[in-house]
Amino acid sequence: MIVRIFVTGGTFDKEYNELEGKLYFRDTHLPEMLELGRCKVKVDIRTLMMIDSLEMTELDRKIILDNCLKCNEDYIVITHGTDTLEETARVLGEASIRKTIILTGAMVPFKFGSSDGLFNLGSALAFAQSLPQGVYVAMNGRYFRWDGVRKNRKTGEFEEKQDA
Amino acid sequence: MIVRIFVTGGTFDKEYNELEGKLYFRDTHLPEMLELGRCKVKVDIRTLMMIDSLEMTELDRKIILDNCLKCNEDYIVITHGTDTLEETARVLGEASIRKTIILTGAMVPFKFGSSDGLFNLGSALAFAQSLPQGVYVAMNGRYFRWDGVRKNRKTGEFEEKQDA
Amino acid sequence: MIVRIFVTGGTFDKEYNELEGKLYFRDTHLPEMLELGRCKVKVDIRTLMMIDSLEMTELDRKIILDNCLKCNEDYIVITHGTDTLEETARVLGEASIRKTIILTGAMVPFKFGSSDGLFNLGSALAFAQSLPQGVYVAMNGRYFRWDGVRKNRKTGEFEEKQDA
Amino acid sequence: MIVRIFVTGGTFDKEYNELEGKLYFRDTHLPEMLELGRCKVKVDIRTLMMIDSLEMTELDRKIILDNCLKCNEDYIVITHGTDTLEETARVLGEASIRKTIILTGAMVPFKFGSSDGLFNLGSALAFAQSLPQGVYVAMNGRYFRWDGVRKNRKTGEFEEKQDA
Repeated sequence: MIVRIFVTGGTFDKEYNELEGKLYFRDTHLPEMLELGRCKVKVDIRTLMMIDSLEMTELDRKIILDNCLKCNEDYIVITHGTDTLEETARVLGEASIRKTIILTGAMVPFKFGSSDGLFNLGSALAFAQSLPQGVYVAMNGRYFRWDGVRKNRKTGEFEEKQDA
Repeated sequence: MIVRIFVTGGTFDKEYNELEGKLYFRDTHLPEMLELGRCKVKVDIRTLMMIDSLEMTELDRKIILDNCLKCNEDYIVITHGTDTLEETARVLGEASIRKTIILTGAMVPFKFGSSDGLFNLGSALAFAQSLPQGVYVAMNGRYFRWDGVRKNRKTGEFEEKQDA
Repeated sequence: MIVRIFVTGGTFDKEYNELEGKLYFRDTHLPEMLELGRCKVKVDIRTLMMIDSLEMTELDRKIILDNCLKCNEDYIVITHGTDTLEETARVLGEASIRKTIILTGAMVPFKFGSSDGLFNLGSALAFAQSLPQGVYVAMNGRYFRWDGVRKNRKTGEFEEKQDA
Repeated sequence: MIVRIFVTGGTFDKEYNELEGKLYFRDTHLPEMLELGRCKVKVDIRTLMMIDSLEMTELDRKIILDNCLKCNEDYIVITHGTDTLEETARVLGEASIRKTIILTGAMVPFKFGSSDGLFNLGSALAFAQSLPQGVYVAMNGRYFRWDGVRKNRKTGEFEEKQDA
């Protein structure tokens, strides 16, 4: 079993530019995070883009979808900004891919002291290995089907969509 | 769905006593870790003991087993020292409990900079929600059935038992 | 000997707002930092403002100057954004106050993993206790007289002003 | 001005051996700590030994003394275990070396989350640049003359020797 990891950016990978005092993207921290977790799951990491999910276009989502369709692996984890996580999940979910696809993100960058990133990555990889085929969002230690989740903008938490 | 968490100690919860320069146990860090992970899984945490797993006796394992049998929850995570994780897993596994029980641990204390604890806790909680009934060890991002796992003493990693 | 600490904001005290994905100010981290350093210097902390030093006005600098003049202590540490650290140092230096005043800052917020804040605070407190009367900038482990320092915008480091 | 740094071990440099669950020494973390502090003081680091200060012998102290006497620099920082910091300070102090020598240590290893090491290193380097000739202990943000300091075994803090 090999888990494919697609990196798209998001808070996960943001860093602090100390000359400008601003947040920015450089490289993904996924390899470093997996090493910290002493992860021995076989993974294959590919960075598709490195952007804030508020800037993600329909074309970007098509690129993610194409990569999910074309890759050889049946188990996929996608790291993604949380602001539009549910939109990308919907694009993938409506495509009815016969794979287990887990989208996850982080509320605080991994490089900052209080990040939830390592916890989320651990749970996303676990769900990728154990849930049946489908597209899921893994956040806050929980998992949600792509058509039953929304981000609560006030609390920052993911929860069941009320009318799902 | 409520996940019961039983704390037994282990590296997870070790701290550094700065007056004596030694490692010791005080309280569990599980609530702090769940908060860091922004965890919204409903959990019920109970500390059964707070010991190094090298000092765990058969009586201690019977206490853990009894608690797994008696508690109302069907999903259980047990934090445990890694040295004898597989022995406790065997005691629970041979009891054929009709629940999903995940044992996990850490190679480095949560309070130290380079801990795998948060990653392991994320994966353990995810496996508890998604694997079928049985007793499993969750380490290194992977899961193993209780009768098919051993700790490699040289690498510190968990792997398939060769003759399993 | 009591060291007066005036907090004005700056990168030192910035935090990450996980709902908005932006940096912001809440409370100062000085007490937490002093506790981490097991600091036993008698200090008296007062927050004068909590702003980015790029937004600091002449009025703000007058408030800082007035507080330095009026306070009872002869040893003062001021935490300050690095962008205009040298300007505030000049205002204080030209006032010829008969006290030892150390301005310091940080390139990375204390709450982020890779902050220089704790190192700078340790050196600033030490310089406040050991340098003769005057106004100094303490950064990068070094100290500079107020009229002989500039921030190198390319490297982010403080250095001797060439024509000083 | 070049500051000579002599490394002797102590809690500063202890690490956690995750296979044995014990603390041990490997290499010094001084370069990493100076980098974190964005330190631009010119320093020359030499590791003299890498031991727990409870195991330090009179011969070890003679080695430290010889190195302080022989080195070209007039400003010296020595990292040292806190348990016998005052004994080494006395050996150096009684030798009446015409240099500024600062001994410092840490209560918690640098690699652990809650270390005072970076704070202490910042203050030690500052004191080395600003105090007159003599031998001092820098801990808890304060400095003490070698013949006027003791470690309070109950609190772990350094304080004035009562009969000094």
